[in-house]
Amino acid sequence: MKRISFLLTGVMGIAGLISSPEPRSGRADEPASPIYGVTIPSGYRDWKLISIGRLAGSNQDLRAKLGNDVAIKAYREGILPFPDGAIIARLAWHEATSEENNKALGDGDSFVAGSATNLEFMVKDSKKYGATGGWGFAQFTDGKPDSESLHKTCFSCHEPAKDNDFVFTRYAP
Amino acid sequence: MKRISFLLTGVMGIAGLISSPEPRSGRADEPASPIYGVTIPSGYRDWKLISIGRLAGSNQDLRAKLGNDVAIKAYREGILPFPDGAIIARLAWHEATSEENNKALGDGDSFVAGSATNLEFMVKDSKKYGATGGWGFAQFTDGKPDSESLHKTCFSCHEPAKDNDFVFTRYAP
Repeated sequence: MKRISFLLTGVMGIAGLISSPEPRSGRADEPASPIYGVTIPSGYRDWKLISIGRLAGSNQDLRAKLGNDVAIKAYREGILPFPDGAIIARLAWHEATSEENNKALGDGDSFVAGSATNLEFMVKDSKKYGATGGWGFAQFTDGKPDSESLHKTCFSCHEPAKDNDFVFTRYAP
Repeated sequence: MKRISFLLTGVMGIAGLISSPEPRSGRADEPASPIYGVTIPSGYRDWKLISIGRLAGSNQDLRAKLGNDVAIKAYREGILPFPDGAIIARLAWHEATSEENNKALGDGDSFVAGSATNLEFMVKDSKKYGATGGWGFAQFTDGKPDSESLHKTCFSCHEPAKDNDFVFTRYAP
């Protein structure tokens, strides 16, 4: 079910067309995603909030999308396609019940972010990632990039959002 | 059911002990919460993410907690009680289904932030708000402060979280 947990991502059927899959940061010691060479951007946990969501079913998670300044500016000004340099981060946590909250509220309706699941990024570089809508994709679990086979699913999964520059998430006011 | 939609808040039975319920900003033209005089802090939508959660049942929302720099520093360094100047914001949205996401995922498991519900703040000022654990509370709907009777419920609802300085939300890594 890993594919389903993977909303910022989808088959990159033409991976071979992308040249120089080097880590963006240029630091060879940082773990980079297969195919795209995307590393974990420093300071992403400080980025501004785009929106939140959740997946029910087998994932049962809570997820937040954060954006770097380029991405946030594009969202707020309604700029599409996203300009080069935009990065969108997807954080996710197992959905946990909060006994403390439920006790205070007198019901069983409160759910909170539990342990982290995995971390995803979309990096806009229209030239480097021209074969995949201008986006490079990455998923990390416990700081390590996930498999190449998983990363082959990123772009095809995002293709239905083509009219929104392959980005599903809308800005939450 | 308004009380249930109100997790950052609860009976402020000793409201009379708080003096000078002036707007924090000192600007009399900004709408301020009853009892506490808390106004909407400028730039709160740019604050860093503390965590996210949701309420099921009649609320059916998705909620994000953001913190100003003082609050985020305290969270990350494990400082309790929160120092004066800390502000925690609670944004919330009606939970919406995403047909676009569900189509891409091939199921009905995706829920996203829809229209905003209301906006809440907790402002730490140990002297000004000494009678309510050092916190001033506020809830705004469409930019307008909600009723005094609602604000009378803030502190008592938060009292069960006394060991965590009356704050329910934990930082999500």
